Amino acid sequence: MENKRKPYQLVSREWKKENTIIKLKNTSIGGGNISLIAGPCAVENEDQIFTICEFLSKQNVKILRGGAYKPRTSPYSFQGLKKDGLILMRNAADKYGMSVITEVMDTNLVEEVYQYADILQVGTRNMQNYQLLRALSKIDKPVMLKRGMSSTMEEWLLAAEYILSGGNDKVMLCERGIRTFENATRNTLDLGIVPLLKSVSHLPVIVDPSQGTGLREIVVPMSMAAVLAGADGVMVEVHNQPEEALSDGDQSLYFDQFNDLVTKLKRTAKVLDKNLDLESEKILA
Amino acid sequence: MENKRKPYQLVSREWKKENTIIKLKNTSIGGGNISLIAGPCAVENEDQIFTICEFLSKQNVKILRGGAYKPRTSPYSFQGLKKDGLILMRNAADKYGMSVITEVMDTNLVEEVYQYADILQVGTRNMQNYQLLRALSKIDKPVMLKRGMSSTMEEWLLAAEYILSGGNDKVMLCERGIRTFENATRNTLDLGIVPLLKSVSHLPVIVDPSQGTGLREIVVPMSMAAVLAGADGVMVEVHNQPEEALSDGDQSLYFDQFNDLVTKLKRTAKVLDKNLDLESEKILA
Amino acid sequence: MENKRKPYQLVSREWKKENTIIKLKNTSIGGGNISLIAGPCAVENEDQIFTICEFLSKQNVKILRGGAYKPRTSPYSFQGLKKDGLILMRNAADKYGMSVITEVMDTNLVEEVYQYADILQVGTRNMQNYQLLRALSKIDKPVMLKRGMSSTMEEWLLAAEYILSGGNDKVMLCERGIRTFENATRNTLDLGIVPLLKSVSHLPVIVDPSQGTGLREIVVPMSMAAVLAGADGVMVEVHNQPEEALSDGDQSLYFDQFNDLVTKLKRTAKVLDKNLDLESEKILA
Amino acid sequence: MENKRKPYQLVSREWKKENTIIKLKNTSIGGGNISLIAGPCAVENEDQIFTICEFLSKQNVKILRGGAYKPRTSPYSFQGLKKDGLILMRNAADKYGMSVITEVMDTNLVEEVYQYADILQVGTRNMQNYQLLRALSKIDKPVMLKRGMSSTMEEWLLAAEYILSGGNDKVMLCERGIRTFENATRNTLDLGIVPLLKSVSHLPVIVDPSQGTGLREIVVPMSMAAVLAGADGVMVEVHNQPEEALSDGDQSLYFDQFNDLVTKLKRTAKVLDKNLDLESEKILA
Repeated sequence: MENKRKPYQLVSREWKKENTIIKLKNTSIGGGNISLIAGPCAVENEDQIFTICEFLSKQNVKILRGGAYKPRTSPYSFQGLKKDGLILMRNAADKYGMSVITEVMDTNLVEEVYQYADILQVGTRNMQNYQLLRALSKIDKPVMLKRGMSSTMEEWLLAAEYILSGGNDKVMLCERGIRTFENATRNTLDLGIVPLLKSVSHLPVIVDPSQGTGLREIVVPMSMAAVLAGADGVMVEVHNQPEEALSDGDQSLYFDQFNDLVTKLKRTAKVLDKNLDLESEKILA
Repeated sequence: MENKRKPYQLVSREWKKENTIIKLKNTSIGGGNISLIAGPCAVENEDQIFTICEFLSKQNVKILRGGAYKPRTSPYSFQGLKKDGLILMRNAADKYGMSVITEVMDTNLVEEVYQYADILQVGTRNMQNYQLLRALSKIDKPVMLKRGMSSTMEEWLLAAEYILSGGNDKVMLCERGIRTFENATRNTLDLGIVPLLKSVSHLPVIVDPSQGTGLREIVVPMSMAAVLAGADGVMVEVHNQPEEALSDGDQSLYFDQFNDLVTKLKRTAKVLDKNLDLESEKILA
Repeated sequence: MENKRKPYQLVSREWKKENTIIKLKNTSIGGGNISLIAGPCAVENEDQIFTICEFLSKQNVKILRGGAYKPRTSPYSFQGLKKDGLILMRNAADKYGMSVITEVMDTNLVEEVYQYADILQVGTRNMQNYQLLRALSKIDKPVMLKRGMSSTMEEWLLAAEYILSGGNDKVMLCERGIRTFENATRNTLDLGIVPLLKSVSHLPVIVDPSQGTGLREIVVPMSMAAVLAGADGVMVEVHNQPEEALSDGDQSLYFDQFNDLVTKLKRTAKVLDKNLDLESEKILA
Repeated sequence: MENKRKPYQLVSREWKKENTIIKLKNTSIGGGNISLIAGPCAVENEDQIFTICEFLSKQNVKILRGGAYKPRTSPYSFQGLKKDGLILMRNAADKYGMSVITEVMDTNLVEEVYQYADILQVGTRNMQNYQLLRALSKIDKPVMLKRGMSSTMEEWLLAAEYILSGGNDKVMLCERGIRTFENATRNTLDLGIVPLLKSVSHLPVIVDPSQGTGLREIVVPMSMAAVLAGADGVMVEVHNQPEEALSDGDQSLYFDQFNDLVTKLKRTAKVLDKNLDLESEKILA
């Protein structure tokens, strides 16, 4: 689709033709099925995370998301339960047989987060934190690299290249909206970048419509749209009591909305002859 | 979804609960089916437009798009066949039983374009050309209002309000991408605005992935995504010889790509229990 | 500063080395002095425009700005006094020996506005209204082309090229801020484009810090900055009662702020060995 | 200028009326004079940094800038001399009696950079690296916080609030351009934010027109403009051989351009009855 010489190599389709598949203990990402990652914005307390986790397990969700260390715009906002949050999330996930994805904010935290998470997430504010990317290039667990809020596709792929060139090829990309002048939505979800990424790179692409729009009412249609745009999965925020969430309540799905999402995504995946990962009890990989 | 008092009225769901349905002689827009509007960026000559029109008619496409007066960034670029282009497009559409949509660039041209078109399009550069909007508020034919390339949703709805408040309620909105820092795609197609528009307004919403991405290879997935985002239709550019097109060749579909689009959109519409308008031989309204 | 072949010609320094100087009856723009254009956002009534005009004349301001036809985002906002406003502004300017600049919104209004104005302004929403640009290319009065709110420099120069290529070389450019994610200011005033424009084009460049920032408190420093960035002039909004203005009151200077502006701009211009146009009683050209 | 309750406190004018003055051993920032910070994008070798430093010392420049750890978009680009670069810069600065500012990219590097630098810079990609901000809140040396490339003023001030609320009030802000659709300049230098920042906050504000524009030819006018916009200082890139620089050569000033800058900034500062810090042999604080 592009003829000029690309500045990235290891992440490109030219380098590796076949899709990268990231295997987890209970599922895989990028292998032809649609991954559905879900959980609260932040782990708030034991009751909350176990309640949500139990609910998700009924839908057979394979991967639990949740923030323990939270990058917050204000120093006076809730900053997460930190290590306690990691432990709670790990325990909840283990009880229900799920994998854990959570954000790592700093090189100093890589070791700690590595201990509790199955996938380490780099947040939008850290997409170009190159020391962190280098540290993550030396681990043997998968990394989800969220797009910087004003990053071009090329910068994003070059950030991924930092991880691959350091030795870790278990990288997935996550589109989570970019910053524009439009303020009716929290960010502008750039679904057009998804098929373009799939064309130029072999890495799995996940879409986060919760961050990408900031409005729970449009998370379901945007999730469906993401799948047909070619995403390998969707990551959404869900909460047992969104109106009392300590962060991002406006964009968190109610339980019944999540159930509706699952039903609709199953129908949507069929258009492409795919299934949701939660449609299988067994390891898909 | 929003609590604060809105500055627009006639375009809002509060003013009118039911969806606006725009009836044409051979189909309708906004009435529950998915409209597929197609044609070349610009009418170039008799052979081109009749060839394309004949092709589209085989797929039972109801609405032909094409530019006769072309707003071009450079004064030295092809500016369209003007009135000759209008006549050619009208003749081709009439031969194959299709409706015509084409752009009107100026108040002075409203009368002329009205004579040949079934839907008058306001282009992105003219979304806030208020004299033109007022002139179009006095006609009895439908208007497609494309989003300004840096317009907020509120400004867009207020532009539509100009037309409705002047007396013409046959208005449809067209998302065609906004301008951001990302240059891998021509524009950033803002699909997130589609479900939000459908929530706050009763007007039909069309998505133009050709303008919105500028890359023919991603027009098909983005069209499918648009339908699941909630769009009432999709408008795409198609050309018999894209590589020789006088304008926007890179984003024009080849005929076989268009056929693939139709097949995939039919499957996609089913997810929402909808049909494409071209699936019916009869007037749908 | 740029090596690649430019898509514009007549507006370029390659085409014409010397600066374009636009002569008015009482001053000139682009001739080495700094033009100070001032007046209300909109003409509201006879008392208002004459009061402001009398005030400005005491500072020897040469060019009166004011809106008669106002492009407003909402159809329910004050739309200007239209022809009555043009007449009032002309009369006020004539009484005090000033030139008039005002916006022309549509091809149908060119003849009328031409009759009353000395400079015809194309607003930001119409920068790519090519029919209007063509109409203005056929008149013998100067045109001020405001930058589109999301236009690149190249698009802006190509819009100017429309006017020059049609036969009118009396064109000046006006930077008025672009649209970004930053909302602490109304727009982001792009002063960096000023020296670049002066390098690649021979056309005069005016800066509008009132529109560009939306905050009267920072209009004075931004005007000074504009002059040292290389602007040929500054256009500001001033009102006798900003808090009661029918439009854009927040960005209109109080009279004492305007006097402060004049004092500071005189000092600023000296840094570049220039003078304000209002420092001369005579025609400068 | 704003009435609504602000989310930041310690950085605000309401909290502290008088300007914050940051004292260094040989000068001060924010104390009424204009600071001129200069040096290469990156330290490349001993000869380069000593040559540049000797040149700058002839102009009595007080603060040397230079990168040792370089955040580069591509992992394959020159990443800086790291600790060797820090040592070279420290030695060069000590020889010529200058202070050193350089970037710290990670919490793990704070201790090392602290040892060699007088001011620790947080780069645009790390503005919201909250772990790094917290680490810097615990040191007793000044911090320059560059604006994130897509940060709002509020987010920027909240990032500064992280540092102040942790105990370090020696913070200066640096505007270095934001990301927009305009690509004629590398970034869009947002000078309008400068007077607004000075109004709402007591922190010193520095402008970086080298990063902000990417074009050396417009660095001089934009530096002058920055001073009249209200900046407390300007930081520019200068190189003995820009065309052979290992990074950012296009935006680095030639020596004679730097001399011209000094001459013009002296004249500019006089407009505001200020002096450049390099006009004094003695400690200004």
